[in-house]
Amino acid sequence: MDAITDYERSSGMSHAAIVAARDNVLAQKTLTVAVLDGTAVPDIGVSPFIRHDDGLYIYTSHLAGHVQAVLAQKQACFMISVDESLTQNIWARHRLKFSAAVTEIPRDANDFHQLCDAFAAAHGNVMGLIREFSDFHMLRIVPDKGVLVLGFAKAFCVENVGFDIVAHLSRG
Amino acid sequence: MDAITDYERSSGMSHAAIVAARDNVLAQKTLTVAVLDGTAVPDIGVSPFIRHDDGLYIYTSHLAGHVQAVLAQKQACFMISVDESLTQNIWARHRLKFSAAVTEIPRDANDFHQLCDAFAAAHGNVMGLIREFSDFHMLRIVPDKGVLVLGFAKAFCVENVGFDIVAHLSRG
Repeated sequence: MDAITDYERSSGMSHAAIVAARDNVLAQKTLTVAVLDGTAVPDIGVSPFIRHDDGLYIYTSHLAGHVQAVLAQKQACFMISVDESLTQNIWARHRLKFSAAVTEIPRDANDFHQLCDAFAAAHGNVMGLIREFSDFHMLRIVPDKGVLVLGFAKAFCVENVGFDIVAHLSRG
Repeated sequence: MDAITDYERSSGMSHAAIVAARDNVLAQKTLTVAVLDGTAVPDIGVSPFIRHDDGLYIYTSHLAGHVQAVLAQKQACFMISVDESLTQNIWARHRLKFSAAVTEIPRDANDFHQLCDAFAAAHGNVMGLIREFSDFHMLRIVPDKGVLVLGFAKAFCVENVGFDIVAHLSRG
């Protein structure tokens, strides 16, 4: 049996319980993106996403201003939140926020159509309509550092594309 | 009977239907805030909110980094999104995003305790625990301009504290 980690001891949650709660957050269908756009407040948007071993992907239109900002900045802050209706304590809605680098998968890349197929499988037949729209961009999101919030005094630092649990934050 | 507005004609939605969908978004319990914090990506957070005639209110701790940034910036971008499980088309999750000015209601202000009571009524007895915590701040959010997204080609410009519908955006 593995030794108890510092973050398990200080948080009172087992590694398995933290990972299960993290993966439940990641089972949501959409993410929120916040990005600098040169004004005094960030821009913000929502997109369906899929997750592969090398990152998360969104397929989104540059007709939305925040997408133009993401294409220009190539980095942004993201958040995935469990639905309110699935939340027991509304003051501690389970969520994962993280900074990430963003790169575009060109429409002529080998994996572009496989990614479109994965979106259609995950998010339904709207993809059949929008996959040919040239204002849409396939973006790979590679997480860097983040925070998983599971309750008061139950926030955890996460790192890397796998959202590895690395430490307990006493308040987050 | 009122004349049909330009935004009703171009969107194909009646004023009453747009307002009903807007108010359904505003019936969510939490909002997301995105704020500049001096780094290359914004910070982001989630808070329960209440709504009064003079704005929205959140009660939130400065132990979260994004709250320190909101207190410093006194402005931010906000979004309220209908739960995924209540969303028919995941590509067009109903949402309201807006920029807003933020002011703090001091703990010794006349209306501070009334606001705390309103939070307790709306969001339950956790408020009894946290209302005395001095790291928490009562913030009034006064919306300026925003966008209400109800579907493809069904986005609307909104303005002011009442989120008045003012125009149709052909794509948003």
